[in-house]
Amino acid sequence: MSFNYLTNIPLEQAREEYISLLHSMGMASECEEIPVQNTCGRITFAPVYAKICSPHYHASAMDGIALKAKLTFGASETTPVVLKSGEFIQVDTGDPIPEECDAVIMIEDVIYDSDGSVRLFSAAAPWQHIRQIGEDICAGEMILPAGVKITPSAIGAMIAGGCLKIKVIKKPVIGIIPTGDELVPPTDEPKPGDILEFNSSIFSAMVEKWGGIAKAYPIVPDKPELLRSTLRQAVAECDAVLLNAGSSAGRDDYSVSIIGEVAEVIYHGIAIKPGKPAILAAAGRKPVLGVPGYPVSGIIVIEEFLKPILEILCGTQTDIPEFAEATLSRPVISGLKYKEFVRVRMGTVNGRLVASPLNRGAGVVSSFMKADGILEVPQGTEGFEAGETVTIKLLRPLKELENSVVVIGSHDPLLDELGNMLHSTDCKLYMSSSHVGSMGGIMALRRGEAHAAGCHLLDESDGRYNSSYLRRYFPNGGVRLVECVGRTQGIMVQKGNPLNIRGMDDLFKGDLRYVNRQKGSGTRVLFDYLCKKSSYDVSKLYGYDREELTHTSVAAQIAAGSADAGLGIYSAAQMYGLDFVPVCTEQYDLIIPDYAWETESVQKLIEVLKSDAFKARLTEMGGYTLENPGKVKEKY
Amino acid sequence: MSFNYLTNIPLEQAREEYISLLHSMGMASECEEIPVQNTCGRITFAPVYAKICSPHYHASAMDGIALKAKLTFGASETTPVVLKSGEFIQVDTGDPIPEECDAVIMIEDVIYDSDGSVRLFSAAAPWQHIRQIGEDICAGEMILPAGVKITPSAIGAMIAGGCLKIKVIKKPVIGIIPTGDELVPPTDEPKPGDILEFNSSIFSAMVEKWGGIAKAYPIVPDKPELLRSTLRQAVAECDAVLLNAGSSAGRDDYSVSIIGEVAEVIYHGIAIKPGKPAILAAAGRKPVLGVPGYPVSGIIVIEEFLKPILEILCGTQTDIPEFAEATLSRPVISGLKYKEFVRVRMGTVNGRLVASPLNRGAGVVSSFMKADGILEVPQGTEGFEAGETVTIKLLRPLKELENSVVVIGSHDPLLDELGNMLHSTDCKLYMSSSHVGSMGGIMALRRGEAHAAGCHLLDESDGRYNSSYLRRYFPNGGVRLVECVGRTQGIMVQKGNPLNIRGMDDLFKGDLRYVNRQKGSGTRVLFDYLCKKSSYDVSKLYGYDREELTHTSVAAQIAAGSADAGLGIYSAAQMYGLDFVPVCTEQYDLIIPDYAWETESVQKLIEVLKSDAFKARLTEMGGYTLENPGKVKEKY
Repeated sequence: MSFNYLTNIPLEQAREEYISLLHSMGMASECEEIPVQNTCGRITFAPVYAKICSPHYHASAMDGIALKAKLTFGASETTPVVLKSGEFIQVDTGDPIPEECDAVIMIEDVIYDSDGSVRLFSAAAPWQHIRQIGEDICAGEMILPAGVKITPSAIGAMIAGGCLKIKVIKKPVIGIIPTGDELVPPTDEPKPGDILEFNSSIFSAMVEKWGGIAKAYPIVPDKPELLRSTLRQAVAECDAVLLNAGSSAGRDDYSVSIIGEVAEVIYHGIAIKPGKPAILAAAGRKPVLGVPGYPVSGIIVIEEFLKPILEILCGTQTDIPEFAEATLSRPVISGLKYKEFVRVRMGTVNGRLVASPLNRGAGVVSSFMKADGILEVPQGTEGFEAGETVTIKLLRPLKELENSVVVIGSHDPLLDELGNMLHSTDCKLYMSSSHVGSMGGIMALRRGEAHAAGCHLLDESDGRYNSSYLRRYFPNGGVRLVECVGRTQGIMVQKGNPLNIRGMDDLFKGDLRYVNRQKGSGTRVLFDYLCKKSSYDVSKLYGYDREELTHTSVAAQIAAGSADAGLGIYSAAQMYGLDFVPVCTEQYDLIIPDYAWETESVQKLIEVLKSDAFKARLTEMGGYTLENPGKVKEKY
Repeated sequence: MSFNYLTNIPLEQAREEYISLLHSMGMASECEEIPVQNTCGRITFAPVYAKICSPHYHASAMDGIALKAKLTFGASETTPVVLKSGEFIQVDTGDPIPEECDAVIMIEDVIYDSDGSVRLFSAAAPWQHIRQIGEDICAGEMILPAGVKITPSAIGAMIAGGCLKIKVIKKPVIGIIPTGDELVPPTDEPKPGDILEFNSSIFSAMVEKWGGIAKAYPIVPDKPELLRSTLRQAVAECDAVLLNAGSSAGRDDYSVSIIGEVAEVIYHGIAIKPGKPAILAAAGRKPVLGVPGYPVSGIIVIEEFLKPILEILCGTQTDIPEFAEATLSRPVISGLKYKEFVRVRMGTVNGRLVASPLNRGAGVVSSFMKADGILEVPQGTEGFEAGETVTIKLLRPLKELENSVVVIGSHDPLLDELGNMLHSTDCKLYMSSSHVGSMGGIMALRRGEAHAAGCHLLDESDGRYNSSYLRRYFPNGGVRLVECVGRTQGIMVQKGNPLNIRGMDDLFKGDLRYVNRQKGSGTRVLFDYLCKKSSYDVSKLYGYDREELTHTSVAAQIAAGSADAGLGIYSAAQMYGLDFVPVCTEQYDLIIPDYAWETESVQKLIEVLKSDAFKARLTEMGGYTLENPGKVKEKY
């Protein structure tokens, strides 16, 4: 038994060895015979030969008369041939040609005489205007070879050739077993400690997208005998099995020992990140994969190991990845020990495709959803520098990336609404927004990585917003300040305001637990300005260092009771049913660089900003004042 | 009523007017709410907002102890902090953090004392090693905007956000009504005059491929009251209806009058070929299309009119066509009156993408199946010249075309077998073969349009095959003659040989009906040589001018009884159960030009020629002698 416990084997080597072992054990695509009408998109298992000819009889290709061509030989303008009734027969298009006939004359070329005879002024060539037997398809002819994808017209050709049932490659059934005591089926009212089991839904969708049939088993609790029997059942019922177990070290050992009882473990531990604890095993010719519990790890492992297996079982390459060269916006540091898969957001800015690394936490499923591509950092490489040209495996079509408005900067839920409306207005346009705070947005614009930046930066010297920052950070100009909304900033507090907070003063009394925003965010700048103005000692504020990246996540912490107060906007407070103590009104604008201004997508965005629908939606959300959204306030 | 009877309106104008009318009548995508697990590949109807946070509780990110960070403040290497049991709690990864705690210390950094207390040598930062509520997704956050395609990871994110059912765009139901007295459901034993109804299967597959649901109604005979009631029912049950009627002039009028009773006919007659008699009608906001009966016409009409409608109803562009520039191998002549859709075969030969026009008959469904692309000849254009660069709408991925071995020349069923084996050997390789006779193949090679040509040309002067033709047609060399097979040519006759034909002599006795091969084919050259040698008068042979393009179609005519004899190869006679009178053995070879020789695909083809599997298959088919298939006999 070639059991390799917690190895760190390179991905490519593990995959090659694993798949060739499965091959040698007999893993191969299988066959099923199904009605030809249901075969669109399926792959032929064997060549399909026509059983009958099409047409299967000599058919008239015209409305006219059928006759024996010989009888017309010698006919000309001057010496017409006369055929008596009985020597010809009326036919319409598609009618069978009588056995003794071998030509059709178009109705327009026939002169009928009163006695029922016809006069013809030119000879008929044998077989003229007849669709001969087999004109389209001949019996015995190969209509399709083995191993090709069936198209709608091929279905027509097969039916025409009398093939009613054909052999196609059977869709492989992939068993998916979620396991873990803390897992619960999807619910919108989970209890603390419950972990929603959504991995099997993600994996099922991947399997079906690639042409397999997903068979998800109910959640198996951490009981060895149950897990063993479910795994045995799945191996018997399916063509391949995924065991999706929690990722802690203890859990992991447990999975590998159970898998080891039912199958032969080939490798445990692959040099990839995320996804290291993957288990590759074989129950005879059937693959059994131990998939780590974190969703992103699981997706990577399934993509790298199950997909090539499915391609063998399905007899075709599906979902062929597209690659593109892009400029990396920020450095990516990676360990030498692993091949790392880094999710990136992408956009075409100023004619250049830019890739920005996303949150690398393996538990963050939304980061995978938001990813536009994957940057693979090879094992033995330390990573890439900012500005380097890298090759990205695309998760969305390049066309979509080229039509995305990239907005980087301060967070406001209105950006999501804006993106939604932009796409509704023109379905080829998308918005990709990243929340890195107002200063982060300005820096992204300076690096040429965004089409627009959301910004609400207060100039302490004059109490005005944004304008002076433009002059400071874009000394050579080249940007516009586009009015967006006024919004109310205030202190979000628990529902009912149990600590009776009336203003900034109250944050510094008693044992209050604050939750802050990250440095560089406009809201942090505002909070620090307000504290400085009133000489509050922020070092005395418990939680001043607890940083969240968005208004909604600040509100979420307060709603969950782990903080008492945080500065944020009204709409976020309203979303969580929190009480709200208004502090001030600030201006939230968009900075748009000249290089982006004239693009169709940005102009459409401005249209949306100016629209009544946008006003209506923001009024519904509350806490916004809209004067002239979309107006260029300054061109600098 | 804006009823335009048998118009010749340009395609683009008709489509634009028709669709904007349907829009104005209220045609739009509709909504359905379904379990989120079933939404992969579907399009969101409305934005999806998270209902709960993910994580929905503060979860430990490590195995360790949870505690109140404040208690650890001041701890250092020299002044450890001691916490008594009760002041901390053991947690594993994923465990909820108790309400009074706000930090986790990794198990590795904890020293346990014997009394149950712990010593800590560094302070914990508040919220360290805790996955805070909403780290991944915040309640209220927009997970997906409206109008986007749902991916597997988005399904995970939606479940994590507590969205169990979501609103997606409903799949539109497209009714398909086949009509005509002569139509019969698919069968492999049709009676003469029966027309197999396969259009509804083709159209259904197209509809499903584009994201709709096809609802095919049973065949409706040509009875006005039945047709009317079925059409009424379909309009009530479906979102759009296709009425697929026969294409003869009479049938057509009939369709339009019935459609006119149920819907408003907008246009009848579009300036396209094939597809002219299309009917565009609207039953309120529901499209009703009269689709011509010939399959190729129907496919074009559905592609041009139904597809854009489906894209509106489905809220997304599906199956976005790929275009490529190609060199036209033969001229395409088209009428000025229509926009014409010409099917082409394609291949990359010598680094150049070449397009060769296919049979233009609208009834030939196999030509659509074999087509690699569509050349659109705009209305008002007379066509294109050979050698012109044209833009082709691809029906197969460019990648496949680049990996196709293009074989043009003499027909032999072994080519299909060869192509099948080539693809089985390496699934990225395909063979595209066209049957234009041996001389046609040589000409294609001279024009640089093929990788190989099947050839069996007898030199009357020395009785040898192929060799002298190479010298004559490739005076500058640059080709190889690759041995393929010896094959038996003979006279195919009805089963039992009722006319008692024993040899060539007997063809010229009595009233025999012959069926010939086309000029330029090797078999025609052979037949003419044999006739000349024995001084037979071919003008006396009935059917000498009846030309078929393949051995199998000659066999099919004899098997159907419309001819008594034809020269052809043994395997074709065997395919149709015909008697066979051997005449001679000839050499069938492949000519391969130098520019193609070194390509991977041609080398793989040679491997297949040399394989035992190829020998075995041809032995099974019969009539072949194999000595050294794949051997280069001459390099010239």
